[in-house]
Amino acid sequence: MALPLPASTRCLLPLSLGLFQAALLLFFALFITYDEHSAAPTNSEDVEHAAKQLHSTFPFFQDIQVMLVVGLGLLLAFLPRYGLSALTHNFLLLNVSAQWALVLQGLLHRLQHGKAVLGLHSMLSAEFAAVTVLISAGAVLGRTSPSQLLAMALCEVPIYLASEWLIVTRLGVLDVGGTITIHVFACYFGLGVSKTLFGNAKPTVHPKETPTPRSDLLALVGALILWVFWPSFVAVLCQPGDAQHRAILHTLLALSASTITTVLISILLESDGKLSAGHLQNGSLAGGVAIGAVADMQITPAAALALGSLSSLLCILGFQFLTPLLLKKLALQDRCGIHNLHGLPGILGAVASVVAALVAPGDGSEAARHKQAQWQAAGLVVALGGSLLAGMLVGAALHLPCLAPPPEPLCFEDALYFKLQERAESLPARGGSTEGVPLATKECE
Amino acid sequence: MALPLPASTRCLLPLSLGLFQAALLLFFALFITYDEHSAAPTNSEDVEHAAKQLHSTFPFFQDIQVMLVVGLGLLLAFLPRYGLSALTHNFLLLNVSAQWALVLQGLLHRLQHGKAVLGLHSMLSAEFAAVTVLISAGAVLGRTSPSQLLAMALCEVPIYLASEWLIVTRLGVLDVGGTITIHVFACYFGLGVSKTLFGNAKPTVHPKETPTPRSDLLALVGALILWVFWPSFVAVLCQPGDAQHRAILHTLLALSASTITTVLISILLESDGKLSAGHLQNGSLAGGVAIGAVADMQITPAAALALGSLSSLLCILGFQFLTPLLLKKLALQDRCGIHNLHGLPGILGAVASVVAALVAPGDGSEAARHKQAQWQAAGLVVALGGSLLAGMLVGAALHLPCLAPPPEPLCFEDALYFKLQERAESLPARGGSTEGVPLATKECE
Amino acid sequence: MALPLPASTRCLLPLSLGLFQAALLLFFALFITYDEHSAAPTNSEDVEHAAKQLHSTFPFFQDIQVMLVVGLGLLLAFLPRYGLSALTHNFLLLNVSAQWALVLQGLLHRLQHGKAVLGLHSMLSAEFAAVTVLISAGAVLGRTSPSQLLAMALCEVPIYLASEWLIVTRLGVLDVGGTITIHVFACYFGLGVSKTLFGNAKPTVHPKETPTPRSDLLALVGALILWVFWPSFVAVLCQPGDAQHRAILHTLLALSASTITTVLISILLESDGKLSAGHLQNGSLAGGVAIGAVADMQITPAAALALGSLSSLLCILGFQFLTPLLLKKLALQDRCGIHNLHGLPGILGAVASVVAALVAPGDGSEAARHKQAQWQAAGLVVALGGSLLAGMLVGAALHLPCLAPPPEPLCFEDALYFKLQERAESLPARGGSTEGVPLATKECE
Repeated sequence: MALPLPASTRCLLPLSLGLFQAALLLFFALFITYDEHSAAPTNSEDVEHAAKQLHSTFPFFQDIQVMLVVGLGLLLAFLPRYGLSALTHNFLLLNVSAQWALVLQGLLHRLQHGKAVLGLHSMLSAEFAAVTVLISAGAVLGRTSPSQLLAMALCEVPIYLASEWLIVTRLGVLDVGGTITIHVFACYFGLGVSKTLFGNAKPTVHPKETPTPRSDLLALVGALILWVFWPSFVAVLCQPGDAQHRAILHTLLALSASTITTVLISILLESDGKLSAGHLQNGSLAGGVAIGAVADMQITPAAALALGSLSSLLCILGFQFLTPLLLKKLALQDRCGIHNLHGLPGILGAVASVVAALVAPGDGSEAARHKQAQWQAAGLVVALGGSLLAGMLVGAALHLPCLAPPPEPLCFEDALYFKLQERAESLPARGGSTEGVPLATKECE
Repeated sequence: MALPLPASTRCLLPLSLGLFQAALLLFFALFITYDEHSAAPTNSEDVEHAAKQLHSTFPFFQDIQVMLVVGLGLLLAFLPRYGLSALTHNFLLLNVSAQWALVLQGLLHRLQHGKAVLGLHSMLSAEFAAVTVLISAGAVLGRTSPSQLLAMALCEVPIYLASEWLIVTRLGVLDVGGTITIHVFACYFGLGVSKTLFGNAKPTVHPKETPTPRSDLLALVGALILWVFWPSFVAVLCQPGDAQHRAILHTLLALSASTITTVLISILLESDGKLSAGHLQNGSLAGGVAIGAVADMQITPAAALALGSLSSLLCILGFQFLTPLLLKKLALQDRCGIHNLHGLPGILGAVASVVAALVAPGDGSEAARHKQAQWQAAGLVVALGGSLLAGMLVGAALHLPCLAPPPEPLCFEDALYFKLQERAESLPARGGSTEGVPLATKECE
Repeated sequence: MALPLPASTRCLLPLSLGLFQAALLLFFALFITYDEHSAAPTNSEDVEHAAKQLHSTFPFFQDIQVMLVVGLGLLLAFLPRYGLSALTHNFLLLNVSAQWALVLQGLLHRLQHGKAVLGLHSMLSAEFAAVTVLISAGAVLGRTSPSQLLAMALCEVPIYLASEWLIVTRLGVLDVGGTITIHVFACYFGLGVSKTLFGNAKPTVHPKETPTPRSDLLALVGALILWVFWPSFVAVLCQPGDAQHRAILHTLLALSASTITTVLISILLESDGKLSAGHLQNGSLAGGVAIGAVADMQITPAAALALGSLSSLLCILGFQFLTPLLLKKLALQDRCGIHNLHGLPGILGAVASVVAALVAPGDGSEAARHKQAQWQAAGLVVALGGSLLAGMLVGAALHLPCLAPPPEPLCFEDALYFKLQERAESLPARGGSTEGVPLATKECE
């Protein structure tokens, strides 16, 4: 079966990737220098300090890399015939977005401070920018071409950087784990894109969209990898010492409560008392999304547990009731349910940060606390409103025919993007013959 | 095909999970405070100390989380139609048991010291308590409902804490890697449960119990993940410095010798000179179980190699001869062969610790060494006897009909616990039709 | 279907493994002592120093273990019926080679310094020696028996140690990430083995050699795991501080550029604008191979990006044009394309190190720089020429019939080495019958 791509894509995608990489290279060559501690760190104390900084950040950085590349990739591979594409698009988007963020950050830093430096911390910020793209892409998984996703990434990264600067630097919002700046932003950006990109067309349900036990198992492994390393994501940018310790503990507790609550709610909601794999893959992570904005504050362990429970409750109710409703009323497509995993728990986390700013022990005056609570709320509004608007604009731009959206019958199909070896289909059976058995199973595993 | 759950389970499981989570939340709210270094660590030295402690423990902690959630989960997913359930039950049990252990530890600590504190170290102890439950569950994998497993967890955690207190705190047994307190205890507890739960009924062999090459591959990946991170499990609680260094080296050597010996013995034992995937998945880890009790002692590298070899030899002989014998003579079911991976190597490790206490270099007098050797032996006896007895009592309690044991024909079947999308079964083939081909393969992948 | 092994293998493999392990144990017992800081480190500063060293190396070490055991194992599992064997042979070879390297290093150290010490650093060097064996084995994957692979390992490790000593210690070649000493060496050694082992016979193409979407997905996960942890591999032996920081950054940039370039080139080259999974699995890692020799030098970030791009370009062109050419003209078999992933990028990295030695900022005189550049070039020549020659000799020795090469029709077949449960083939379908459906799909998943 031939699944030809239009000639435009065949040229456009590699061409634009090539131009992108070449431009970046030029930029790096001209502007970027190292974030070294001194030109010649002969001083042994300096060396030791640099080494200590590296060793206290690098394990966290590696954990986050595993989350994004392997964990998130596998979680997205829940569509039985779209696993290779999901994993690959995620991987490609991460690299393009992170490099793009490095360049933009470098430019900004150069404008402000005269030079752009590169270090593990700028890498980390760039990864965080890339995360928003990966989350947003979940809303349109399987119905968008790589060119569309890359175009989205090129638009989303600068908007994220502006939004993050506004929220964190200008408004002074506290959000160590990115609940507002990353999760809420990315979710509503993705929903905005989905809305204007797909318009009011009601999608036909593809049978290819139904996970098999096998693809569900792989996606569950991806979710578990995300679950395990989530504390590193939340705590990496915390102040070392007690604040970081608290952030790790709170994240662990929230994730644990999420897991238990997810099982309980999923069983209660399903008519025959069975668990839904999709609920488990998402609900057990919801606590990690919500805890981010308050993780390093002096909230209590009980509050972390409660926040985790509540966020997974919201997440599952979202899957069960809100997503179908949004699809029916607004024709809003959200393939991976990012609104349930990132949107609702993100808003909950933001609200929790308003409350925590008011009541958690800390060293501010009453007035300062009220002020901080207002900033937290303002941050949520900016992240949500701004990203929705920006996303809708970007989604409209993704209609460009040169971006080669996949034809409807070929959505959710690896064969559209991957050279799958057709010969495999005539693979002779061991000790038997496959004559007359269409090897459908091969693809739907 | 409808696989209805009895109404009791449908309500009981979520109800009890909900009560559990609510009670825990209350307890945390009332009693738990942070393990902070001071109320206001303004002192920069204190901050640095706290940061250093965190950075020296957290990477180990993350390694252990990967082992338990991903590695052990996949290892248990060797049953072709029970992968989702194995992974999920393991994940749920880990969370429930760890939270439960946190509460019980907190209560104890409060009784002794007036307040219960929470920190990464108490999290780590709680994880260790949870490990015992995960191991014990291996004996009854596939033939028990989640309600039964949770009931077992609620009973096993306090018994483990009591046993660990008696063995380590009262008797002063040296067991840094949990050979006696975790592996031996968990194994005989699980076997006790299996014995009284299943009685003398000879189980019919389910064809669903036979691994496929695919499920064996995933289980092997799980075993490899456990293998890689095992040194972190053994060494995390060691004294920093040389003792921790030794523990890591000994564990690496023991695991390496186990791997080679496993291949050699498995090939020798099988009639046609082929390797058994099950032997490999278990035997290569046996050295890690046995080394735990002596890992930080000044045994020699050669002793670590020998212990690793010997333990995998015992493990494989156990699979080949002892498990069938126990099944035949005692009707003792041990689905994952935990007696071979945790029981026999655990006993071997305990015996090794008796010998090491007598002969390894150290700074005790002759009399003190004899004393220590006796305590090591006493610890083994307590762990083994106590857990077997306790397990049998708990197993008897698991007969309660409200715990909804799975009906025999539906054992080892994901469809009993998971809402599997039936529509997937009519997924049309790419470039062909599946008419007349029952999609049996979907589930047995 | 019976796939009997010749009696010789049935005895030879376990016998030789047993002898190997016994001999090693004896050696360890006689000669190896600990790498302890003092007999009795009562000094608290000593203890702290030892702890710091351990905590700064161990996370890197664990990352590398995951790469070799899980990442590389899965990457090699791209053959649909050979996944268990690929993963297992890789695992076994790693253990045998590392132990063998420990012994040989210990002997050398004893000859030079009077005693052989064991520590995490010697473990790390042993792992590096083992890596060369794992890479070389890629050339002959699926067409060699475990006995042949083990014989190759026993020969390759001492040759590697000699080559590494000559290149690094004698010539003073800078190669912190093993580009020359590991990748180039291992690649040409493997190609040499392949050439003389298989001679001029043109292999028939097995349909079993064609990856399925499923096996490609698992292999891609393996590649992603390697990609994530590659910076740890390159940077583990760097000087702490800025040099290590640079090495990590350069590796991240090179890998990122590789990924983007791979997608772009693969799409351009394939006639219908689709991506090849094989290109992606290898090309995205090529930058990591090439950067090793210059990673800690003061090259610029732009140079790292350029090197990454260029190396993946070479890698994919190699797959597309050079591998078929070598097969046609020289009958050179290279099953995993190690020449494209390790050979070409390795040579590129070596050339880059010559240039970097000349132009990168540093503290040597003009003359010293020229000298260093010459040594870098000499190192490449020694690694390439020596390994090719040695590999061809070893390949000739692997013809020995007692090493039981797999019969041609049973190549790439797990069933030759694994006891696969035949009963699984008659697994009754849930809600249906499999009568008349040969369960071919089971093995080709």
